[in-house]
This record gives sequence, structure tokens and C-alpha cells, in this order.
Amino acid sequence: MNKDRYEIGIEKFKEIKGDKGEQIIERLQELDPDLARYILEFPFGDIYNRPGLDLKSREIATLAALVALGNAIPQLKVHIHGALNVGVSRQEIIEIIIQMAVYAGFPAALNAMYAAKEVFMEMDEKAKKKENVKLKDFEPDKLPTQLIKQNEKS
Amino acid sequence: MNKDRYEIGIEKFKEIKGDKGEQIIERLQELDPDLARYILEFPFGDIYNRPGLDLKSREIATLAALVALGNAIPQLKVHIHGALNVGVSRQEIIEIIIQMAVYAGFPAALNAMYAAKEVFMEMDEKAKKKENVKLKDFEPDKLPTQLIKQNEKS
Amino acid sequence: MNKDRYEIGIEKFKEIKGDKGEQIIERLQELDPDLARYILEFPFGDIYNRPGLDLKSREIATLAALVALGNAIPQLKVHIHGALNVGVSRQEIIEIIIQMAVYAGFPAALNAMYAAKEVFMEMDEKAKKKENVKLKDFEPDKLPTQLIKQNEKS
Amino acid sequence: MNKDRYEIGIEKFKEIKGDKGEQIIERLQELDPDLARYILEFPFGDIYNRPGLDLKSREIATLAALVALGNAIPQLKVHIHGALNVGVSRQEIIEIIIQMAVYAGFPAALNAMYAAKEVFMEMDEKAKKKENVKLKDFEPDKLPTQLIKQNEKS
Amino acid sequence: MNKDRYEIGIEKFKEIKGDKGEQIIERLQELDPDLARYILEFPFGDIYNRPGLDLKSREIATLAALVALGNAIPQLKVHIHGALNVGVSRQEIIEIIIQMAVYAGFPAALNAMYAAKEVFMEMDEKAKKKENVKLKDFEPDKLPTQLIKQNEKS
Amino acid sequence: MNKDRYEIGIEKFKEIKGDKGEQIIERLQELDPDLARYILEFPFGDIYNRPGLDLKSREIATLAALVALGNAIPQLKVHIHGALNVGVSRQEIIEIIIQMAVYAGFPAALNAMYAAKEVFMEMDEKAKKKENVKLKDFEPDKLPTQLIKQNEKS
Repeated sequence: MNKDRYEIGIEKFKEIKGDKGEQIIERLQELDPDLARYILEFPFGDIYNRPGLDLKSREIATLAALVALGNAIPQLKVHIHGALNVGVSRQEIIEIIIQMAVYAGFPAALNAMYAAKEVFMEMDEKAKKKENVKLKDFEPDKLPTQLIKQNEKS
Repeated sequence: MNKDRYEIGIEKFKEIKGDKGEQIIERLQELDPDLARYILEFPFGDIYNRPGLDLKSREIATLAALVALGNAIPQLKVHIHGALNVGVSRQEIIEIIIQMAVYAGFPAALNAMYAAKEVFMEMDEKAKKKENVKLKDFEPDKLPTQLIKQNEKS
Repeated sequence: MNKDRYEIGIEKFKEIKGDKGEQIIERLQELDPDLARYILEFPFGDIYNRPGLDLKSREIATLAALVALGNAIPQLKVHIHGALNVGVSRQEIIEIIIQMAVYAGFPAALNAMYAAKEVFMEMDEKAKKKENVKLKDFEPDKLPTQLIKQNEKS
Repeated sequence: MNKDRYEIGIEKFKEIKGDKGEQIIERLQELDPDLARYILEFPFGDIYNRPGLDLKSREIATLAALVALGNAIPQLKVHIHGALNVGVSRQEIIEIIIQMAVYAGFPAALNAMYAAKEVFMEMDEKAKKKENVKLKDFEPDKLPTQLIKQNEKS
Repeated sequence: MNKDRYEIGIEKFKEIKGDKGEQIIERLQELDPDLARYILEFPFGDIYNRPGLDLKSREIATLAALVALGNAIPQLKVHIHGALNVGVSRQEIIEIIIQMAVYAGFPAALNAMYAAKEVFMEMDEKAKKKENVKLKDFEPDKLPTQLIKQNEKS
Repeated sequence: MNKDRYEIGIEKFKEIKGDKGEQIIERLQELDPDLARYILEFPFGDIYNRPGLDLKSREIATLAALVALGNAIPQLKVHIHGALNVGVSRQEIIEIIIQMAVYAGFPAALNAMYAAKEVFMEMDEKAKKKENVKLKDFEPDKLPTQLIKQNEKS
């Protein structure tokens, strides 16, 4: 095992995936520790760590490839989070998906659009929940019951 | 036929492909006038003309997709010219190709690298030839013979 | 935006998809209004509207491609409805799927067959329900309760 | 119809798929009797029955192809059972999947790994259940109630 | 070996491929006698021989799939001959190719269009040559020299 | 750069590719030194070096994947040499290719078969040449002229 590349990979992974990074790494390690290690070492420790192309451009390239390949929807969803994290906007993600209709056909673009909108919706719902909780901080007497209901819904 | 989208498409196509644009359009029209028209109208008139993603990022996305798809080498070569034209550097093109080994496998990356290096070499040879011709402008008496030899080699 | 191609696209879309057309268009527009517009304008306004190949043959070609591509099951299901609508029989759809085992392998054919049989079953269940309701028109006193139960099940 | 190839196919299918073979054949025949017959006759009656490559190597080749194709997860799961049955170990299956990251990219390897681990877990749970039932044979007074609960859970 | 399916396959193959059929079979047998036999037995003896979809529709489906798959250009060329032979017109072939831009992207459609136009040109050149030879039958004294030149060019 | 994995990769590469190994590495390095390094480090230094699956089985898996992917003919040819080198027989390679018709369709199998037979023929021609040279060792007076002619032909 190569400590250095592995550690660089973890750092790069967290830089790209943000606060979700830790959790995704854990799930990958549960799935298969060797495959998890290679993912951290080679794509993230070696490739994403290379100079010569900025992280935003790297995520644009990855999104385009995952949309075009057509059978990588779970990975596309993870990389949509990553792309947003390194400065690709929602609108830019949508543009990449629409553009892929030209190169990989409309079915690939459509399936990717469904995945992207699903990710956006989940993010908005989570954000709304946090917002609500924050607002309720100013209504201390109502908080406990409401939070319980909140949790029941989710 | 829709004049506006068609004309926007031709402009966009020439903006991206540079001085090679005119010639590629002619070859596409010889191949099939209807398919040529759709290429100019939809990808270039509609998609590349959209705001929301700059041309450099659009070419990065297209290069990534063409490498990942694996069966679009002629289109990859054309888009390498286009990418260079809108500000993607050779190094960045190489980075995109190497990164695709992660998502589409090493064979796809290798075949794309061969195509890219071929395009770069052709460009360098053409540039060298022009350079030589320019230098020879200062050796007027030697020019005719040398140019003939030059042409014999090519 | 191009009104003419868009309107032709909507007409063509409804001609192919039948009474489901309106609803699918609405869902596409909810998903992404721009991608929805391009789908109506380019494939349906431009391509399916071309003379030179009848609609039945166009749907045969599309079904074959969607089976062979292997990662377009949702689109395959929508086009099975479309194909039936423009005169492709269930038996012909099954023949196309079996034939694709030759060109794209048995897994692609198998996954498509599951999708096709699912669509056929849903159609038969809906038809049976309608049939039942019609029959019950002749048993007026039993109708209200039975219809409620019917709806509860669906 | 060709009785001989069909019968050889059924035998080969059961040899590979083990005690699950009968059930999978029935499900294939329910799905589509003609496609089921071709699957038994051509891949299993003709190809897997050929000398020149042992069954274990044939299953290794098939697993690799199904991982690389990326859109054949249901078939991959069935062939993981088959591979285990003809002597490919779990570790060897995991090795094949990891190796495919090199040729078809990490998303294909990741999706295949999820499928494989799911199959392994299901097998372990079934095995545990059988084990439990066997152990309870020595606690005769507790058996009836426990078995009922057991069955309710499954 | 199964004589009946094999013989039906040869007949069907020749019916579809026309006067080129014999020659293609020989080349397939030189390549690999077993693979050649399976191609004649399964796709042509079993599938193309099935009722339920006419030969013209079968060739439309096959052309669409081969264009969409993108890595089957040699097979696409052979099937363009076959399609023309069973009643698909050149215009219809072009329509299928253009339509595939929608489902498999423009690169797949473009590469297929190049292949199709190449096949059409070869056919036209052969036809012209035959035409010339026929015309020259009426100019007997000029024939020998002209035929030699003709052959030199080809 | 990681010396150890790189050196293990070179050793493994040469073990698999045999006497051609050195030359292929040089060509890869000329193409692109970074991509060459990753190929030696990750697939060969990391993956092929793993215990848990013997080299022969690894090459069977790789051949199957490259045939199924359909757009990796140059890599397939290189791996046919590698497979033969680690103990896969020509007949076994042909079996793998024929089997892939089941999972990836007949066009993929046919294109791979052409590639395989081309590799076999080249090997046989080289072997014959060497054989001839050896035989001529016993006709010393004729050797020089004949060898020159031999080289002119190749």
C-alpha cells in the first residue's frame, strides 16, 4: 500500500465532495476496501491531483463522460455534488447534460437530467429543513415537538 | 429550412473550428446536405450558441464525451482543433484524455491519445513548413528549387 | 425559439404517442423546459416529420436502436407505446427484440423483453379495468361501491 | 425446434446454475418462450457445450464481459451464481471486477461490485437461515412458533 | 452440426445478400468455420427465418442497431447491401442514419453516413463499368484496348 | 512518482507480453510518458500483480472485456500476444471470441476474430521466416544474398 498517494487521494476526494466526502469514503470501504483504496489512490491521488487542468474543468469533463457513458447514473449523482462543490453551477450542469444529446443521443441526456434534478431537489429539501430549524431557534417553546414531527416526516 | 438557426450555426462553427471551418462544412455538405444542415442548426445553431456555459468549457465537455464514447475518433480529431481554437491548451487536452482512463478505461484513453498526438504532429509539420517558406523569402535565389523539393516530400 | 418546428413537433409527438402524448410532454417540460423544447423541435419537428421513411418504419428503427443501446429502458417503454400506436404489432415488437440478441447480445434482448412485457401487462390491466366499468353500467345499483373499491386498488 | 440442442442446453444450464437452474428456466419461459428457447439452444446448447475452453474459464470470460458492458446487471447477478457453481471463488469474482476498472472504467467496476456483494449477502443470509433451522431441531419445544416467525420475516 | 438450420440459414443469407451472398459466406468460412456456421444457423437459420416481421422491416431494425452501436461499420456495410436487396431504398437508408443522430448522437450518424455513401459509390462505379462494357459490345474494334485501360484504372 | 509500483509494473508487463514487452513500453513512453507510467503502475503494478486470480485467468477476463467493448481492437491485439504468453492457447482465444457473440453480439465477435486471425498469421509468418533462416545456416554459401532478398520482401 502506498500511504502518500492514498492520503493525497483522501484530501482531494474531500476537497471535491465537500462535507459528504467522509461518508462516501466510508461506504466505499464497506463495499470493498481494495477497490476503495484504488479509487482514492489512482483517480484522486494521481489524476485529480495533477496540475495542468483546474478542478472545475476536471469535473466538467467527468460529468460529460458520465452522461455520455449512460450506465453510470450513481456516479453521475455523486459527481454532481462534487461539481457544485468546486464551482460548477447548476445551470452549467444542465448545459453539459443538454449538450450531450448531441454526442450521445437524447436518451442519455434525458436520463442524466432526471438524475440531476433529483439531486437538486434533495439538496433543496435538506436546505429548507435546516432553514426551518434555524427559524425555530427563535421560537424556543415550540421547538421540541416540531423537531420530532420534522424527523418523523424525513 | 430555418435560415436563422442555420446562419447562427455556420458562424458558431467557424468561430470554433477557425480557418478549417469553411472546408469542413463543405465536406459535410458533400457527404449529405440534410445531415450537414442539422449539424449546423442543432448542435451549433442551438446548443453551442446557448449562454450559461462558455465555449472553452463546452469543448472540454465534448472532448471528454468523445474520448469516453470510444467510437468517435474522426469527430475527436475535429474537436481537438476546435478546442485549441477556443482556448483549450494541448496540455489540457492531454489531461482530459488521461482523466478519461478513470471513467472509460485505459483502451479508450490510449486510442484518444494516439489521435491527439497525430493531430498535434500534423499541426507542427504544417507550421514548420510555413516557417521554412517564410525564412526562404530572404534567400530569393534559392527559393524555386527548394519549394519544389519541399512539395515533393509532402 | 422557433414556433413552427415546435408546433410541428407537438403534433407529430401526439400523432405517435396517442392519448398519452399530452401528458408526456407536460412531464418533459416539468423536467426541463429547454430539453423538452429541443426534443419536440429536433427529433419530432425535424426528423420524424421528414418524408422518405414511413412512421411505422421509423418506430421500428428507434425500437431496434433503444434495445441495442441497452441503457435507454425508460425511452424504450415510451416508444413501445408509440410503435403500437403507428401500427407496429406486439408480435413485431417481440421480433425486433429477439433479433437484437444477434447484434447487441442476449442481455440487451432480455432486459428489453422484460420492459416490453411490463408495458403490455400494464396496458392489458388498464383495458380490463375499463371493460369492467363498462359491464357494470348494466348493473346500476352495484356501481358506486364497486367503483370506489376499484379505485382503491389502483 | 431442435430437440437435441435444446436438451443439451437445459442440461448445461442446470450444470452451471445449479439448484437455481430449473427456476430461472421457468421464469425465462414465462417471459418469452421463444427467447427462452434460443437462450437454451444457442449459448448453452451450442457455445457452453463446446470443448476447447473449460466451464470455469467460460464463466470468467462471461463475468468480465458483463462487468465491462455495464448495462447487464441482472445477467451479471445470475452469472455470479453460475460462476461460484463451476468453481470460481468469491475472491476471484472480486478480482475480475476490480480488474475491469482498467478496461471499462471505475463506474462499471463499482456498479458490478455492488451487485456482487448483494448476491453474496443474499447467499449468506439464506445459509444462515438454514443453519438456524438446523440448530433449532435440537430445541423441539421452541420450533413451531419460531419457524412461523422466521417465515413471516422472509 | 444441424443440417436443416444451416441450410435454411444459407438460403436466407443468399436471399438477403443477393449475388454477393456466396462470396461473403466463403470469406466467413475462411475466417473461422465455427463462427461462420453459427452466423448461418442462428441469425439467418433461426431469426431472419421467423415469421412475424417481414425481411424489409428486419433489415431496417438491423441497420438502426448497427448505426447506434457505433463499432460495427464492416457489418453495417454488408447490411446496406442486404437492405437494398430486400427493398429498402437508398433514401430510406439515409433516413435511418439521420434518425439515429437522435438516439445515438451525431458522431454515430456521421460515421454511418460515410460508410453508406462509400457503399453507394462503389455500387455506382461497378454499375458504370458494366454499362460501359455493354456499350462497347457494339464497338468491337475498340474493345480490347479500352478494357485494358479500364482495368488499369480499377 | 512511485518507483516500486512502476518497477513491479515493468516486470509484470514483460512477464505477460514476453519479448515484445520492452518495445511496447518504449512506444507507450514515446506516445505519452505520463499515460505510459500510469499504465505500468496501476494495471500492471497494482492489478495484475494481485494474488487471488492467476495470470491466465486475468488474460481470459481481459480478452473477453476487450472483445465485448468493441472499440479496443489495438489493445485486443496486444493482449492476444500476452494471453498466448501466459498459457492461453489459440483455440481458447477463439473460444472466448465466439462466446462473446452471446453477450456482445455477432459484430463484436466477428471484428475480434479478424483481429485474432491477423495476429496469428503475423506470428506464423515471422516463425516461418526464422525457420527459413535456420535451415539456410546449412547452406552457408547461399546465405548472404538470400537474406538480403528476404529483408527486401519484408
